[in-house]
Amino acid sequence: MSLSIRNQIAGTVISVTPGEVMATVKVRLEGGQEITAAITLEAVKELGIEAGSAVRALVKSTEVALATAATTGLSIRNQIPGTVTEVTTGGAMAGVKVTVAGGELTAAITKDAVADLGLAPGATVTALIKSTEISLATV
Amino acid sequence: MSLSIRNQIAGTVISVTPGEVMATVKVRLEGGQEITAAITLEAVKELGIEAGSAVRALVKSTEVALATAATTGLSIRNQIPGTVTEVTTGGAMAGVKVTVAGGELTAAITKDAVADLGLAPGATVTALIKSTEISLATV
Amino acid sequence: MSLSIRNQIAGTVISVTPGEVMATVKVRLEGGQEITAAITLEAVKELGIEAGSAVRALVKSTEVALATAATTGLSIRNQIPGTVTEVTTGGAMAGVKVTVAGGELTAAITKDAVADLGLAPGATVTALIKSTEISLATV
Repeated sequence: MSLSIRNQIAGTVISVTPGEVMATVKVRLEGGQEITAAITLEAVKELGIEAGSAVRALVKSTEVALATAATTGLSIRNQIPGTVTEVTTGGAMAGVKVTVAGGELTAAITKDAVADLGLAPGATVTALIKSTEISLATV
Repeated sequence: MSLSIRNQIAGTVISVTPGEVMATVKVRLEGGQEITAAITLEAVKELGIEAGSAVRALVKSTEVALATAATTGLSIRNQIPGTVTEVTTGGAMAGVKVTVAGGELTAAITKDAVADLGLAPGATVTALIKSTEISLATV
Repeated sequence: MSLSIRNQIAGTVISVTPGEVMATVKVRLEGGQEITAAITLEAVKELGIEAGSAVRALVKSTEVALATAATTGLSIRNQIPGTVTEVTTGGAMAGVKVTVAGGELTAAITKDAVADLGLAPGATVTALIKSTEISLATV
């Protein structure tokens, strides 16, 4: 499968909490991080996602925010520490590559944010991803 | 109504599944594709959305991912086949126009993704849109 | 906390409607606008979010759409009127700064959208933000 979605991280489902139309799925990534995905209950059923399922967590780069300091009291469930390895700046947007335990993430953020946060290779950051922005693929 | 949201596709509501705070709405697009939108239950009630309602499905271009091969086992509910007609590349991002049955979609993806997938006019792709990224407008 | 998330607006929680996995949280912003955030129930519990909580609403600039005319019949819950103060155009994307009551918003939209809507400093717009795209931070 060839997808434009830059971020694809392998992991194993820990638990599924079903609601009436949505479900939250907790996944332990290969790098050890635990993430939460909020997907439709229908998707959970059709893909047969349950504890133990091998999945890939998919996140578009435009859905990844970066923080340069400790974050507390934030509703964003997924916070993955890493180190910036590359910054590519365009006219309005920028692409930032971040090495995390077990892989690499790409964040597409505004050029202004890169400047304000002083992002450059070597910077320590936390990648922030809202649960509703994570899709899952069964392997 | 003049909206910056690039993708606006007309359709008819097939069904509404209400949860406590969210609802999923299935819509048949004019091109024949069936899509699922996850919106707040409040929006469903205020707009009076029900089976038979004429709606437009709205999707920001940053929410459209592209796949160049068959996709299976993916939690992303909406998968619309099409053909690339135009690629505009910026410094970090790129805009890709895709003709689909009944209309056209624009995807704003990273420049890296365009290169990795070899996207160019004529390429066969599938546009992928997570249910939570689709808004609805009543006509 | 230094975040790449451009839009951070202070406000006070008015009400919380819990579902089984998701919850909607209504927040009155400092500028007087009322917004709705759809976040996981888990986040509501862990952060102790309830009526009266002081929060910041966080929205990535890629999640902000703009409308230049009145919008009705739209499932997008959050519609904040403002005035364009700056447009920065890149190869594929553009950054648009919008002054709203009580603060400023940044929208990252396609260059095509800026051209089609004729966006320029002084333009009157409405910023549109889907509930699922709003995160909350406790203060």
